Amino acid sequence: MRTQWDSSQWSLLQELFPICRSLTGNGVRATLSILKREVPELTIREIASGTRVFDWTVPDEWNIRGAFLEGPDGKVVDFKDNNLHVVGYSEPVDAVLDLDALWPHLYSLESQPDAIPYVTSYYERRWGFCLTHKQKMSLRPGKYRAVIDSTLQPGSLTYADCVLPGKSDREILFSTYVCHPSLANDNLSGPVVAVALLKWLKTLNRQWTYRFVFVPETIGAIAYLQQHQALLTKTLAGFVLTCVGDDGPFSYLPSRAENTLADKAILNLLQHEVDTFKTYSYLDRGSDERQYCSPGIDLPVATLMRSKYGTFPEYHTSLDNLNYVTENGLTGSFSLFQKLISVLENNLPCQTTMPCEPQLGKRQLYNTLSQKGSSQRARTLLNFLAYCDGHHTLLDIAQKLNLSAHSLIEVRQLALDHSLVTRPFQNGL
Amino acid sequence: MRTQWDSSQWSLLQELFPICRSLTGNGVRATLSILKREVPELTIREIASGTRVFDWTVPDEWNIRGAFLEGPDGKVVDFKDNNLHVVGYSEPVDAVLDLDALWPHLYSLESQPDAIPYVTSYYERRWGFCLTHKQKMSLRPGKYRAVIDSTLQPGSLTYADCVLPGKSDREILFSTYVCHPSLANDNLSGPVVAVALLKWLKTLNRQWTYRFVFVPETIGAIAYLQQHQALLTKTLAGFVLTCVGDDGPFSYLPSRAENTLADKAILNLLQHEVDTFKTYSYLDRGSDERQYCSPGIDLPVATLMRSKYGTFPEYHTSLDNLNYVTENGLTGSFSLFQKLISVLENNLPCQTTMPCEPQLGKRQLYNTLSQKGSSQRARTLLNFLAYCDGHHTLLDIAQKLNLSAHSLIEVRQLALDHSLVTRPFQNGL
Amino acid sequence: MRTQWDSSQWSLLQELFPICRSLTGNGVRATLSILKREVPELTIREIASGTRVFDWTVPDEWNIRGAFLEGPDGKVVDFKDNNLHVVGYSEPVDAVLDLDALWPHLYSLESQPDAIPYVTSYYERRWGFCLTHKQKMSLRPGKYRAVIDSTLQPGSLTYADCVLPGKSDREILFSTYVCHPSLANDNLSGPVVAVALLKWLKTLNRQWTYRFVFVPETIGAIAYLQQHQALLTKTLAGFVLTCVGDDGPFSYLPSRAENTLADKAILNLLQHEVDTFKTYSYLDRGSDERQYCSPGIDLPVATLMRSKYGTFPEYHTSLDNLNYVTENGLTGSFSLFQKLISVLENNLPCQTTMPCEPQLGKRQLYNTLSQKGSSQRARTLLNFLAYCDGHHTLLDIAQKLNLSAHSLIEVRQLALDHSLVTRPFQNGL
Repeated sequence: MRTQWDSSQWSLLQELFPICRSLTGNGVRATLSILKREVPELTIREIASGTRVFDWTVPDEWNIRGAFLEGPDGKVVDFKDNNLHVVGYSEPVDAVLDLDALWPHLYSLESQPDAIPYVTSYYERRWGFCLTHKQKMSLRPGKYRAVIDSTLQPGSLTYADCVLPGKSDREILFSTYVCHPSLANDNLSGPVVAVALLKWLKTLNRQWTYRFVFVPETIGAIAYLQQHQALLTKTLAGFVLTCVGDDGPFSYLPSRAENTLADKAILNLLQHEVDTFKTYSYLDRGSDERQYCSPGIDLPVATLMRSKYGTFPEYHTSLDNLNYVTENGLTGSFSLFQKLISVLENNLPCQTTMPCEPQLGKRQLYNTLSQKGSSQRARTLLNFLAYCDGHHTLLDIAQKLNLSAHSLIEVRQLALDHSLVTRPFQNGL
Repeated sequence: MRTQWDSSQWSLLQELFPICRSLTGNGVRATLSILKREVPELTIREIASGTRVFDWTVPDEWNIRGAFLEGPDGKVVDFKDNNLHVVGYSEPVDAVLDLDALWPHLYSLESQPDAIPYVTSYYERRWGFCLTHKQKMSLRPGKYRAVIDSTLQPGSLTYADCVLPGKSDREILFSTYVCHPSLANDNLSGPVVAVALLKWLKTLNRQWTYRFVFVPETIGAIAYLQQHQALLTKTLAGFVLTCVGDDGPFSYLPSRAENTLADKAILNLLQHEVDTFKTYSYLDRGSDERQYCSPGIDLPVATLMRSKYGTFPEYHTSLDNLNYVTENGLTGSFSLFQKLISVLENNLPCQTTMPCEPQLGKRQLYNTLSQKGSSQRARTLLNFLAYCDGHHTLLDIAQKLNLSAHSLIEVRQLALDHSLVTRPFQNGL
Repeated sequence: MRTQWDSSQWSLLQELFPICRSLTGNGVRATLSILKREVPELTIREIASGTRVFDWTVPDEWNIRGAFLEGPDGKVVDFKDNNLHVVGYSEPVDAVLDLDALWPHLYSLESQPDAIPYVTSYYERRWGFCLTHKQKMSLRPGKYRAVIDSTLQPGSLTYADCVLPGKSDREILFSTYVCHPSLANDNLSGPVVAVALLKWLKTLNRQWTYRFVFVPETIGAIAYLQQHQALLTKTLAGFVLTCVGDDGPFSYLPSRAENTLADKAILNLLQHEVDTFKTYSYLDRGSDERQYCSPGIDLPVATLMRSKYGTFPEYHTSLDNLNYVTENGLTGSFSLFQKLISVLENNLPCQTTMPCEPQLGKRQLYNTLSQKGSSQRARTLLNFLAYCDGHHTLLDIAQKLNLSAHSLIEVRQLALDHSLVTRPFQNGL
């Protein structure tokens, strides 16, 4: 069943793909304003270069108008063809060099000779071109002209966020990043699924408050945490949205604390709602969970993704493109995150309204004729009630029953509808 | 070694077997008065029909004088031959019907064509006959006369209990049920072993208070809990006595909390005192542990039985009879429950009377000549003492030593006799 | 790499080997005064015979000048040849007996016919000779003269200890025993490694206070605990030094509590710093951990040894000699205990100085060019920092990272040198 949100994900990703994003600059701004067109609730914010954010300093803003490398046989690479051809944050250059002098400025992958690698140098001034290893090895000695028409000057770092309030001010955090140029799974899949989730969440009567954060990776998350410290006390569970667009099986990267609500929710979902999945260690982390979980922040943030960053060959190369990401990949991820959110929305502990078992028969929930064999439906309801002690959450009960928490939502609703359990208190978690 | 209690179990079960028990009525009263003849300390109590017990209402009392089904070929079934022939709580009927009209009132088991099923309809008015599938399929079209000479009218629900006080008023609970007609393992084995345990316990100088409860299943346990709320704060451990009469290996069904004293005692016993056993999940529960463990009650009640209700083919059919239950089955269960009680009686933590190891040699508990190899007896005593820190109970120490708690009772006694440990405080648990 | 401490261990063991030690007496005094020559900080103490130490009484002092057994074929055994020939604590005797009368005074091992067993009778008056089973079976009937020139009279029990103060008065305890005659692995290896560790520790700027205890086994440890009760509140971790001189793989015998600092330190070391090791249960204990861990003392004392006492055939026989113990065995043990101490010295929890991840690049700890693949060194540093939350100790972090705690000491130092973590508080443990 395709929903209204499914179809828009793929076209949004296609629209965003060509933009040259980086840690800062107009590519990020263009990206965020497209996202704001989709979700007007987004707030776009700027932090001036030179601002100290914890141990880091916001760097100069980088913008690029064009770049090319030309040699004895004509044009070698042009920024217009693929924005990965330029090392991110390259300083401006217009020089003629021998191949030998040029060589240290050329980046390629010997092990993937047909892929252009994605290379950046945010915190040290460099310039360089990225190209396929095949092409690099075919370059003839001679004079080469290297032109990068970029600027590196004080400006600002741009990010966006959006808070959808719920009945409770306890928050569910989704964080994704917007700093990679034409790379599809890592990272455009994240913002695209985030936008779909935001649109869907706006239609819900929400139990929790939802915060979505769109930042450049690492320094953006660090800056965000410094500027929004309320986060630290309000966050119930958080998720980094990354690499959710390919067709690979799902992966789970735990939070530092390993057993938070975010971890439990992901694990239950993966154990019961998908065929197969892969579990990583927190030691394998690499995205913004590094900041959200660091000892001085310590938020319950875990990552549910498809093929983990760094593990698929297309990662950080020109092969992570619109062929690698699929519409099925995106919609499958979106649908799993919908279930995740539904579980969290229904996770508050309930308490049975009567000390012993209720009489299900008089409520037409149990067969009045008692003979060998019994209804699984009644049995699951009774098992669910057996743990409604005001302490076990939906996820806790699902674990006891070895069932999908998502599948128990309707059992919980049945129990609520028949007043077999009390309405949960908002401060129950 | 047969004890005085062994022989009486089998004859008591034979005596009780023919009585037509149900949720209420004279069959229950006849049963309980036989039990009271054996254990005069039993108190028999009545709760009037219509009494509200938590979510339930005590139903009208059901009594039956006779019933038969007659057809073109003569008598089909007669209540006199087997009280399972009548659906429990059948309303009175005296009607002549065609086979087609009769058919929905006939209950049989296609998968067990030679067995009469046990069927009840306590909370919705019905009438019906149970018969073997073979017989049902042989019925010819024609006129049938169905007669059930029963009454369903305000009366009461009957149950019994018995409290044997001990040094401590903390209680060990045994609960069994008395509501099944001529069914031997489920359920007569329970009351019969309960009576034997009561007779034996009366001869002991008891540490704990023992409460035995004989109720109709489910509503009886619920009513009991409502009327005896002191139970809720006093119960140290509890056990449902059911299905303890066959020759199958023992089974363990945990309490809801899974790691209570009742659970630990059963598990240690099964791990060390029997050859093989089966462990179930609390999700497999089906008897009165459902009430004792429900969230609003939450008692430490687990079930130690032989073949679990619902798992053996004879269950709830005419095959669960005096051939299925054996004298060995009953006496083996009785003997295991004796060990269970002995372990609980000796479970209070002790504390060593000296900071370091005692000198066993001067007490003739250790070889005064030290050479390679050492006595296992002294070693077990020293290992036992190593955990006598005032916190570890007998069961805790048995788990540390990977030994039967029952086998450690004499080691504990040796330590007490030599003043190597202090007498346990009554409030040590 | 041999250190100055390595070479001295072997020669010290050779020097100590011939001395006839026992529970009390001049052999112990001679042994301790050689140890004090090596470590002048040792204090030698005496406890008078008859002194009550908890449940025990210090026995009379035993000294022996000589002993022999002579028969029809001449000298059978002589104390001068091997001090194991005399049962420890033999009362004096000078008697002529038939072989039949002598027989109960002769001790040998049928299963090890070429070994002289080590036999003692501390707490009951006996006399006896130990010899090889081969020799015993060759004795001819006839008259035998048995002479043991010993004294058993009020004197004292001798022991020694040494406390090296550190920045903190919390103590690390090493306990070893000095009561076995010419037996090399059990027990001379213990005191010899203890002396090497003491010499090395004196050169360190110590975080913790170190207490070394040299006592006769069992009664010595009990007496020590009675006389030094401050130990009970100060000890952070403790280790019994025994059987550390052979070439066998290392063994671990846990403390009674099983998960103390001593246990964690030993386990991490064995899991990451040696190829293979064996884990025992606390139920297998047999040395002074019996006293240090007993319920009334309850110290965090575990044992790290090579081949465990009681498990190697040479144990408590004349085969546990200078051929069984090796220089490599001793120096390997010494080196592992050095690592153990280094880990404990660096085990205090640190806390990161910044809420999020630090910028390693500006400190030249991270590659400024970001491309596929990353430095393992930076990764380990970031992983280390990820758990520097003021709670996780070095050992805790090592367990999280599945790395040797010893290997993390330099990572911790790097973090300290770059002010990435705060200096630990002394009372952090």
